[in-house]
Amino acid sequence: MAAAVSSNLLVSADRIAADIDALAAITEPDRPYTRRAFSPVFLKGREYIARRFRDAGLMVRIDAAGNLIGHRAGRVPGRGTIMVGSHSDTVPDGGRFDGVAGVVVALEVARALAEQGVELDHDLEVVDFLAEEVSIFGVSCIGSRGMAGVRPDEWLDRESGGLTLREGIAGVGGHPGVNEVRSDIRAFLELHIEQGPVLETGHLDIGVVTAIAGITRLEIIVEGRADHAGTTPMGNRRDALSAAARLVLGIEKLALAASGGPYHFAATVGEFSIEPGAANVVPSRARLLVDARAEQRADMAGFVAALLALTGDVAAATGVTIHPPLTISDNLPTPCDADVVELLDASASAVGARHRRMASGAGHDTAWMARITKAGMIFIPCRGGRSHAPEEFAENNDIALGAAVLLEAVQRLDRELV
Amino acid sequence: MAAAVSSNLLVSADRIAADIDALAAITEPDRPYTRRAFSPVFLKGREYIARRFRDAGLMVRIDAAGNLIGHRAGRVPGRGTIMVGSHSDTVPDGGRFDGVAGVVVALEVARALAEQGVELDHDLEVVDFLAEEVSIFGVSCIGSRGMAGVRPDEWLDRESGGLTLREGIAGVGGHPGVNEVRSDIRAFLELHIEQGPVLETGHLDIGVVTAIAGITRLEIIVEGRADHAGTTPMGNRRDALSAAARLVLGIEKLALAASGGPYHFAATVGEFSIEPGAANVVPSRARLLVDARAEQRADMAGFVAALLALTGDVAAATGVTIHPPLTISDNLPTPCDADVVELLDASASAVGARHRRMASGAGHDTAWMARITKAGMIFIPCRGGRSHAPEEFAENNDIALGAAVLLEAVQRLDRELV
Repeated sequence: MAAAVSSNLLVSADRIAADIDALAAITEPDRPYTRRAFSPVFLKGREYIARRFRDAGLMVRIDAAGNLIGHRAGRVPGRGTIMVGSHSDTVPDGGRFDGVAGVVVALEVARALAEQGVELDHDLEVVDFLAEEVSIFGVSCIGSRGMAGVRPDEWLDRESGGLTLREGIAGVGGHPGVNEVRSDIRAFLELHIEQGPVLETGHLDIGVVTAIAGITRLEIIVEGRADHAGTTPMGNRRDALSAAARLVLGIEKLALAASGGPYHFAATVGEFSIEPGAANVVPSRARLLVDARAEQRADMAGFVAALLALTGDVAAATGVTIHPPLTISDNLPTPCDADVVELLDASASAVGARHRRMASGAGHDTAWMARITKAGMIFIPCRGGRSHAPEEFAENNDIALGAAVLLEAVQRLDRELV
Repeated sequence: MAAAVSSNLLVSADRIAADIDALAAITEPDRPYTRRAFSPVFLKGREYIARRFRDAGLMVRIDAAGNLIGHRAGRVPGRGTIMVGSHSDTVPDGGRFDGVAGVVVALEVARALAEQGVELDHDLEVVDFLAEEVSIFGVSCIGSRGMAGVRPDEWLDRESGGLTLREGIAGVGGHPGVNEVRSDIRAFLELHIEQGPVLETGHLDIGVVTAIAGITRLEIIVEGRADHAGTTPMGNRRDALSAAARLVLGIEKLALAASGGPYHFAATVGEFSIEPGAANVVPSRARLLVDARAEQRADMAGFVAALLALTGDVAAATGVTIHPPLTISDNLPTPCDADVVELLDASASAVGARHRRMASGAGHDTAWMARITKAGMIFIPCRGGRSHAPEEFAENNDIALGAAVLLEAVQRLDRELV
């Protein structure tokens, strides 16, 4: 029976490769690999996925939030659902594996179970979440937020190119007016490429995700004084760029210190601009956008406090005015379910995968699913840690090994969740 | 006679104020104080100046290079010309005194001589140079370069909004095809606002300019690596912004050191941009444009060498690639004529003005006139050192005192240049 043979079940690396390649070919022409949510090419990708879901014996539907779901009934009525999946939408110019690998591997789990005649007690659902990436509407994780019942209603009125999000969700087959919050899901698992270099550098196969980092974005405005670059003595300037450069290096130092502990921390100044931006004028204004990621909320609080102190120190040292950092957005870290983390560790060991625990610095649908169920996530290596770019690459053998871990984990969950 | 009574000649502060106010009122509506070269409002300003030249008894003409000249014949034929003046064109949004003060004061010198019946041995010419500021054609000092015979011929084909510079010069009454290099000019003097804070801070009336700084502009490109801001560990980044911030502070440090000596030096990073400029992506590229100004060529050479070493050090410390600084433009410093500097010192003392010697960090028409004649320049204070902005301001009494120095200097030159 199923429970007895779990770790010997086989996944097919060839089928995984065929699906990844087929989806890679469904892209905006001359712009690989682009399949942005709500676009015609995105819908074409979903048609392919839905067909493969049906081929695997899954019942296909689109839920109210616009997620594509393949359903396989379990043996025990009322036992609830184990859900696996990720997303098939991409950023512009990059996304051959980001999301897609998780959808294809989830499909392969269902396919392997069917092929080898293994029934589960729980229903199994394979999901392709709608619009995990930042969409044309400027927001992300639209489908998983919807499934978790936390998609803000006002988002439906967002508009892009004459289309509202309400129309966009209806256009993919969802029901934007319906708030369908799932209470039957007993566990959710997602496989994703790491999008960082940790696994590759450590020669590891699997990262068991302990938490999805919180993301806080802070805007800092520096106000100096526009002076003539030729005539204003060096000692008599209030150069906003000079002060902003001190902030950049101070932020880097704070982030290096915070990342030295046991928990994931990173901070990046990704947006940086000065005014007036003329060769012969001392810069009068600078704007920095700081993106900080913390596995532990306490680390974020410490960083934000240190940043405020830093701005005060730099202002005092340089004579410019630095406004207190303005919080643009602030999302709490999401710990993965502790039982699921242990189960994923055990599953990786069972299939012989070299693994470690790690936090996710990037956001994922799993963070939203964790609000309504026991959620967990595994990472697989990707070349050079590159992502969101055409050169994003994951070895098919690594993806297939991840599929084997997921298959093992689904069967263990099926036994343990009673 | 004139030679005997020079230091008692009077200039009229009221006439100066009336001319400055009249020209301030000739501006683009709702955009004070804007009278860009070649524009209809610029031509309107010149009509006013030409009329005032005639009122002062000057013969008015436009030379081949497009400069407006008022001519007063001297007593001794063949003695040559003493020229005084500046420019009446402005930058956008600023220029109530920059240039204008020098033209009005030169006119007042002619007016005072005429009013008080003083004849000079030399011809006296009052000049309004064409397009000293960076013009719509992207180049500056068009008229003074033309008068010195060093305006590049290819500039005539430059175009802006369907107009060529050739057409622009013809449009103001010049003859763009004619290369009229003046050999009769025995000396040139220009009064200008300082555009910096040195005189005001030092409670001084007059700056006697020793040299006009050379300007070298260098572009630096930093190439790092675009990484995911959330997933890439802090210790595993090649952040172009972090490296560029180190360059900014290193350049500031070099400039502070170079400016500590007896000669003027300043360096500014006025243009600074990063790519891709996305909140969640580690910056992959940065561009800096360095504007360096040196009174002494040796200081500039030292700075450029130190800058090259700095880029190497920062690249080695951060792991990014930094291309060697690319020289975008390189103008040598121009010393003012040593005899004229002494004569201006003596003239300032004679009229009771508190004065000091200083270099000009900004470029001026004087730098081009120095190629064909003994040239010198005086600065007057301006409020807060502000310039190229609507708040640029000079006290009328300070301008009038500058006019008195200039009147004294013209008479001394007339005596000394035989």
